[in-house]
Amino acid sequence: MADAPTRADKFSFGLWTVDYTGADPFGGPTRSNLDVVHVVEKLNELGAYGLTFHDDDLFAFGSTDAERQNQIDRLKQALADTGLIVPMVTTNLFSAPVFKDGGFTSNDRAIRRFALRKVLRNIDLAAELGAKTFVMWGGREGAEYDSAKDIRQALERYREAVNLLGDYVTDKGYDIRFAIEPKPNEPRGDILLPTLGHALAFINSLERPELVGVNPEVGHEQMAGLNFAAGIAQALYHEKLYHIDLNGQRGIKYDQDLVFGHGDLYNAFALVDLLENGGPAGGKAYDGPRHFDYKPSRTEDETGVWDSAAANMRNYLLLKERAAAFRADPEVQEALEASKVTELSVPTLNEGESYDDILADRSAYEDFDASAYFNGKGFGFVRLQQLATEHLLGAR
Amino acid sequence: MADAPTRADKFSFGLWTVDYTGADPFGGPTRSNLDVVHVVEKLNELGAYGLTFHDDDLFAFGSTDAERQNQIDRLKQALADTGLIVPMVTTNLFSAPVFKDGGFTSNDRAIRRFALRKVLRNIDLAAELGAKTFVMWGGREGAEYDSAKDIRQALERYREAVNLLGDYVTDKGYDIRFAIEPKPNEPRGDILLPTLGHALAFINSLERPELVGVNPEVGHEQMAGLNFAAGIAQALYHEKLYHIDLNGQRGIKYDQDLVFGHGDLYNAFALVDLLENGGPAGGKAYDGPRHFDYKPSRTEDETGVWDSAAANMRNYLLLKERAAAFRADPEVQEALEASKVTELSVPTLNEGESYDDILADRSAYEDFDASAYFNGKGFGFVRLQQLATEHLLGAR
Amino acid sequence: MADAPTRADKFSFGLWTVDYTGADPFGGPTRSNLDVVHVVEKLNELGAYGLTFHDDDLFAFGSTDAERQNQIDRLKQALADTGLIVPMVTTNLFSAPVFKDGGFTSNDRAIRRFALRKVLRNIDLAAELGAKTFVMWGGREGAEYDSAKDIRQALERYREAVNLLGDYVTDKGYDIRFAIEPKPNEPRGDILLPTLGHALAFINSLERPELVGVNPEVGHEQMAGLNFAAGIAQALYHEKLYHIDLNGQRGIKYDQDLVFGHGDLYNAFALVDLLENGGPAGGKAYDGPRHFDYKPSRTEDETGVWDSAAANMRNYLLLKERAAAFRADPEVQEALEASKVTELSVPTLNEGESYDDILADRSAYEDFDASAYFNGKGFGFVRLQQLATEHLLGAR
Amino acid sequence: MADAPTRADKFSFGLWTVDYTGADPFGGPTRSNLDVVHVVEKLNELGAYGLTFHDDDLFAFGSTDAERQNQIDRLKQALADTGLIVPMVTTNLFSAPVFKDGGFTSNDRAIRRFALRKVLRNIDLAAELGAKTFVMWGGREGAEYDSAKDIRQALERYREAVNLLGDYVTDKGYDIRFAIEPKPNEPRGDILLPTLGHALAFINSLERPELVGVNPEVGHEQMAGLNFAAGIAQALYHEKLYHIDLNGQRGIKYDQDLVFGHGDLYNAFALVDLLENGGPAGGKAYDGPRHFDYKPSRTEDETGVWDSAAANMRNYLLLKERAAAFRADPEVQEALEASKVTELSVPTLNEGESYDDILADRSAYEDFDASAYFNGKGFGFVRLQQLATEHLLGAR
Repeated sequence: MADAPTRADKFSFGLWTVDYTGADPFGGPTRSNLDVVHVVEKLNELGAYGLTFHDDDLFAFGSTDAERQNQIDRLKQALADTGLIVPMVTTNLFSAPVFKDGGFTSNDRAIRRFALRKVLRNIDLAAELGAKTFVMWGGREGAEYDSAKDIRQALERYREAVNLLGDYVTDKGYDIRFAIEPKPNEPRGDILLPTLGHALAFINSLERPELVGVNPEVGHEQMAGLNFAAGIAQALYHEKLYHIDLNGQRGIKYDQDLVFGHGDLYNAFALVDLLENGGPAGGKAYDGPRHFDYKPSRTEDETGVWDSAAANMRNYLLLKERAAAFRADPEVQEALEASKVTELSVPTLNEGESYDDILADRSAYEDFDASAYFNGKGFGFVRLQQLATEHLLGAR
Repeated sequence: MADAPTRADKFSFGLWTVDYTGADPFGGPTRSNLDVVHVVEKLNELGAYGLTFHDDDLFAFGSTDAERQNQIDRLKQALADTGLIVPMVTTNLFSAPVFKDGGFTSNDRAIRRFALRKVLRNIDLAAELGAKTFVMWGGREGAEYDSAKDIRQALERYREAVNLLGDYVTDKGYDIRFAIEPKPNEPRGDILLPTLGHALAFINSLERPELVGVNPEVGHEQMAGLNFAAGIAQALYHEKLYHIDLNGQRGIKYDQDLVFGHGDLYNAFALVDLLENGGPAGGKAYDGPRHFDYKPSRTEDETGVWDSAAANMRNYLLLKERAAAFRADPEVQEALEASKVTELSVPTLNEGESYDDILADRSAYEDFDASAYFNGKGFGFVRLQQLATEHLLGAR
Repeated sequence: MADAPTRADKFSFGLWTVDYTGADPFGGPTRSNLDVVHVVEKLNELGAYGLTFHDDDLFAFGSTDAERQNQIDRLKQALADTGLIVPMVTTNLFSAPVFKDGGFTSNDRAIRRFALRKVLRNIDLAAELGAKTFVMWGGREGAEYDSAKDIRQALERYREAVNLLGDYVTDKGYDIRFAIEPKPNEPRGDILLPTLGHALAFINSLERPELVGVNPEVGHEQMAGLNFAAGIAQALYHEKLYHIDLNGQRGIKYDQDLVFGHGDLYNAFALVDLLENGGPAGGKAYDGPRHFDYKPSRTEDETGVWDSAAANMRNYLLLKERAAAFRADPEVQEALEASKVTELSVPTLNEGESYDDILADRSAYEDFDASAYFNGKGFGFVRLQQLATEHLLGAR
Repeated sequence: MADAPTRADKFSFGLWTVDYTGADPFGGPTRSNLDVVHVVEKLNELGAYGLTFHDDDLFAFGSTDAERQNQIDRLKQALADTGLIVPMVTTNLFSAPVFKDGGFTSNDRAIRRFALRKVLRNIDLAAELGAKTFVMWGGREGAEYDSAKDIRQALERYREAVNLLGDYVTDKGYDIRFAIEPKPNEPRGDILLPTLGHALAFINSLERPELVGVNPEVGHEQMAGLNFAAGIAQALYHEKLYHIDLNGQRGIKYDQDLVFGHGDLYNAFALVDLLENGGPAGGKAYDGPRHFDYKPSRTEDETGVWDSAAANMRNYLLLKERAAAFRADPEVQEALEASKVTELSVPTLNEGESYDDILADRSAYEDFDASAYFNGKGFGFVRLQQLATEHLLGAR
C-alpha cells in the first residue's frame, strides 16, 4: 500500500485548480471561490509542498496596487505559517477581454506591449516569492481562421517577447527559468506551438535557449492523440523538461483536466515509471515538482474538491509503487532482455567504426539473413505489455 | 480557369502512389503493379516534372544486383526519353518482416546495422540520379506498448544514424539534403517524432543540423488534429521546409492519402496561399517540388489512377488561382488591415527599446485602457474568413 | 451569385447564438448581452424568418413570474412588429448549478421532478408562441466516470420523462413534436445518446415514437468524427429529421460552433445538396427550418456578431447554388451513371423474386465473373469527387 | 489471483485473429497462416470454448466445392476431437476485389446479388455447424466521397438483404440470430451504420427486427471517441446485445485490434463489471460468448500469437475479479448511495402520478430549493472514481 504524501514527493497544485468554481461553456459556477489562505492550509494538511498561481488567481485583473499587495501579503503569511513554497508562478494572458486575440502575439501591438508589462511585473513577484520556474501558457495565442494570423510573424513576436524576458531575468540576477506549456487547441481553434515538439523547436531559435524549457501537460498532448510519456522522454532527451503538469484526459475531446490517473492509466503508469525510474534505462529522470493542473469536477462541492486533490497524489504514489515492483520483477527483467529493449542502448556502430568500416562488414548486409525475421525472431512485446498490465492491476 | 500543369509547377509523384495496388488492412490488391517506364511516360503526359521512389518500389526487396541494375537502367532511359527528373529518393525501412520493429531504432542491433547499409546504398543511387533530397519516413520506428521501447535510446540511435549519413554525403560531396517525415501513428501505435515539431526539435540535436529538414505530409499532421498550414509556417520560420508531401485527409482517422484538395479545403487553400504567396506577409515561401504522396482509391481501375493523379495537380492550380485573387482583392486587403493581421509584422518593441524603456512607458500599462476591448475593438476575423470562403468558392 | 436571404429560405437563429457573450472555459465575456427586441429586429433585417430560444435565454433562471411575463410580452410585440416567428423552443436543463448532474436523468430524483416541471411550463409557452418543434438537448445527461451513472436506468428515466411529455402535448392538443439533439461529450465526459443513431434507437422505445424525432447538429456529429450528411440521410431514411442545427466544426475537438460553412466545406456542400436536392436520388428532402446554432467568435464585437449571422445564410445560399449547378451538369449526370450511383436505387432482387429464385439464378453466383473486378470495372469515384470539387470551387 | 479460463467462461476467438499474418497498409506478412486444426487444438489447450470464422478464413475465396468441403470436414473433426464449438459464423464481403464498393450496398447490382448468394451459402454452413449467431460486418459498405453513395438507397438495399436473410432462416427453421457489427471508418472513409446506435435504429426498420441485434466491438466504438461500456448498456437496454467483440484500442486512430485490456483499462473494467455484475444495478447482464476480435501484434512470432490469445482471457478474468471486489466493498456501496447512483432506479414519478399530479406538487417546483445545489449537495463522483481506481489497481 502506498504511503501518504510528504513534502519529499514535491507535489504542488495550481491555485486555480482547487479554486475552480465549475464554470464551463454551458453552465455557470457551482462553487464559490476559495480564499488563498484556506487553500494553502488545506494543501499543507494533505501533504503537498507547493502552491502555484497566475497573477489573476491571487488578485483579480484590474486590482489596485493596494488590493494586489494585500493578497500577496496574505499569501506570504500563509506560506510562512505552513512551510509551503511557491515553486512556480505564471501569468494570465488569456481571460480578460483585452487578450481575446492573445497576448504576446495579439494582432494588436498595444496589447502585446500591455502583455509584456503584465508579465514583467509578475516575474518580479515570482522572484520575490522564490519561484524557480515561470510558466508561459499561450492559450489565446492562435486563431480560428487561417488568414487571421500570420504564423511566422506570430512566432517572431513570441520570440521577441521571450528574448526580452530572458534579458530581464539575466540582468536582474533572478534564479528563474521559463517553461512553455503547449496545447493544440481550446480556447482557440488552433494554438501556436501546439505540441511539446513545436515548443522545443521554437526554443532552439531563442537568444537564450538555455533559459527556456517546456511544461507539458498530460491532457494537452493527449488532446492531439499523442503519447504523453513518449513526449516527456523526448523532452528529457533534449534536457528541456523544466516543469510538468499532471492530470487526466480521456481521449481526443475538450480539455478535461481530470485527476491524474483518472484518464489513460497505461500512459500514467509509463510516465511515473519514466519520471521515477527512468523507464527501461534506469535512473530518476526528473527531479522537479510533480505539479497537478486539474479541475475538481463541476458536480462536486468542497468535500469533492479536497477528495480530488488527495486523489491526484494518491494515484501518483500508487503508480510509483507499481512501477517499482515492475522494474524489480526478475521476469520483467528477463522479458526486457528477450525483447531486446535493453539492446537499444548499445550503439549501432562499433566503437570508432566509420561508414567505410560498416560498408566493409559483410555480416551487416550481404550475409545478413533478413528472412529469419519471417515466422521467427518475434519481439515478445505482447508478453511485456501483459507483465506491465499485471503489475498495474496489482496482480503479481 | 486554371491552366494545365507544366514543368515550371514542379509537380512530382511517388512511384508508390500511382502504383498503389489497393491492398489495405481488410483486402488484397484490386490492381496490378504498373511498370515504372509506363509510369514515367504517363506522368510526363499529365504535366508532372518529377518521379520519386523508395528502393523497394523500383526493385523488390531482396533483388539480385542484376535485377536491381536492370530496373535502374530502365528508369534512367525513361527519364532520358521524357525529360522527367528524380528530385527525391527515399528508402523503405518498413515493409519487409525484418523491419517489424523499425530500422534505425529497432531494438535489434543487427537490424539497425542492416538498415544503415540499405540506406547508404540507396543514397549512392539518389546521388547518381541527381536527387537533391533524401526523405526519411520512420514509419516503423515506434511501439504499441510503452515498455517495449526506450524512447530516449531510440532517439539516440536515430541520431547516431543520421549523423553517420550526414558525414557520408558530406565526405562524398553529394549535393543532397535529408528531410525527415513525421507521422503520429500507423502502422505503429505511436511513432517516434510524431509531428513536424518533434522532428524539428530532434534535428537541432544533430551534428550537422543544416543538412536535415522536414518533409511534412498533409494527412500526417491532420491525423493528430493539427493545422497543417500553421505547421508549415513554423517549418518555414525555422527554414526547415526541405520537401513537402501533398495529399488529402478527412479528420482524425486512419491515413487516407486522398487526392490533394479532397480533404480539408480551407487548410489546402491556406497552404497553397502560404507556399505561393507567403500568406499575409507576401512573397513566395517555398520553391521546391510540390510532391504528391497520395493513394488512388481502391475502388478505381487504371483510368481512375490517372484521373486522380491529374486531380492533384488541377486542385493545386485551382487553389493557387483562388489564393492569388484573394490576395489581390482590395476588400481583402482592407479587411486584413482592419483585423490588424498586418500589424503583427510590426515589432512589439520600438527600435532600440529596452525593458527599462517599456517599463517607463505609462501608455503601455498604467494608462492603457484594457476595458475598451469589452464590447468594442472587435477583430473582424469572421468577416475575413467569409471573404476567404467566397474566394475559395469562386463567388467573388 | 447567390440571392439575398428571404423568409422563404426559412432561416432561423437561436437567441443564445447572436447573444453569446464570448465566455468560454478560459475567459469571461467580451460582449454584453443583447436585448431580445433588438435581436428580433436585426434578424428580420438580415432576412431570417425565425427566432428560437431556451427559457433561460429570454428570462433568467429564477425570474419571478412578472419578470418572465414581461420578457414574453416584449418578445411577442417584437414578433408582431417584424413578422418573425418562433418555430422552435427548448428548455435549459444544463446551466444552473441544480442541473450539474443533468435534468431528466440526474441521480437526484428531486432534480428530475424539478426538470420535468420546468419543461412542462416551457411547453405551454412554446404552444402559446406557435412553435411546432420542441428541442431537447440533454447536455448534462451523462457522466465523467463509468460507475457514477447507471446508463440503463438513465435511459429508463429519460424514457419516463419523454413519455410523460408526449401524453401532455397529446392531451392538450398542442401541435408540437419533440426533437432530441445528440452530442457525444462536452460539457460531460460522455453524454447519453451521443449520436443521432443512439437517439433514433432510443426514440423507437418510446410510447409515442411518432411524436419524437431528432435535431442533429453539424458539429456534434463531427466531434465524433462522423459524416454529418450521411447521418442526416439516415435520419431522413427513418423519417425522423424533425429539425436541424447548422454550424461549422473543424474536426474532433471542443465544440466550436463556427458559422455554417466555416468548417468542413465538402460535407456542408453534401448536406445542402441532400436537404435541397435529395442527394443523388433527387427531390427536396427536408422542408423545415434551416436553424443556425453557432457562436459568433469571441474576438468579435457586435459588428462581427451580425456579420457572422449573415455569413451563415450567405454560405447556405452559395452552397445551394453550387449544388444546383452540380446536379444540372450533364457531365456529372453521366459520371453518376458511370459510377452506378443511380443503380443503387434498383432493388437487388427482381420483382417478386424469392430466395429460391435467386438461389437458382446461376448468373448471380456460379457464372458470375468476380475476377473481372481486378484490374477492371473501376467505379470512377475519384472523377466524381473531382467534379464535386470543381463545382464547389465555382470552377465549372 | 484470477483462475485459469474454463469453458464456462465462454471465451471464443475468430480464426482470423490468431491467424492474422501481420500484413498491414505498410508491410507484408511476418507470419505464415496457421492451419485451422492447429488453431482449434491450441485454443482448446488455452481454455477457450469456441472458434468463429468468415467463410474465406476457412477456405480461400474462389475455392472449389471440394476444397471447401475438405476444410469444413477438417474443422468438424477438430471440433469433435476437442469439444470446441462454433458459436458464431460470419461472411467475408470485404476482401476480394469484387467487393471494393461493398457487398449488400455496392453500387453494382450484380455484386449485390453475388453477395447475397455468398451469404446464403454461408448461413447454411453456420446452421450445419450449430452456430447460433451470424455476424454481419459491413466493412466495405460505405464511401470516401459524399456524392459516390446515396445513403438512403444504401440503407434500403441493406434492409432488402437482411429482410431476405430473415425470411430464409425463418423458413428453414434455423436457430440463428443476426448481429450487425458497426464501425465508423476504415477501410472506407465512412462506413454505413457507423456506431451501434445507428445499427440499432436501422434494425427497428426491418421486417423481422427480433431476429437482428448488434455485435459491437470495443475498438470500433472507441474509434469514434464513444464510451464503449455506455454503448453496451444502451444495447442491453434495447435487448439487442446478441454478440460482443472484445479487444483493445488506444484512442481515435486506425483500428488497432489490441488484446482486450491493453487499451482503455477503465472502460474495460466498466464493461466487464456491466457484463458480469450488471453495473450499479446488479445482475448478470449478458450470457453469450466473450468473443475476442483482436490481432496479435505484427512484431510477434507464433509464441507471441498464443501469448496474446491467453492474455485476452487472463485480462477478462482479472477484471472480473476486480469488479466483483468493487461491488462487494461496503465503502463502495456506501459511496454509490451517497452519489445517489442507486436513486436513479427510482421512477421520477410516484406510482400512478399523472402530469396533473406533478404539476400540483409545489414541492417539485415552487418550493424546491434549487439554490441548495450551489456550494452544496456535491455528488461525490470523484470519490467513487477513486474507489474504482483503487480496486482496478488491486490497491484495496
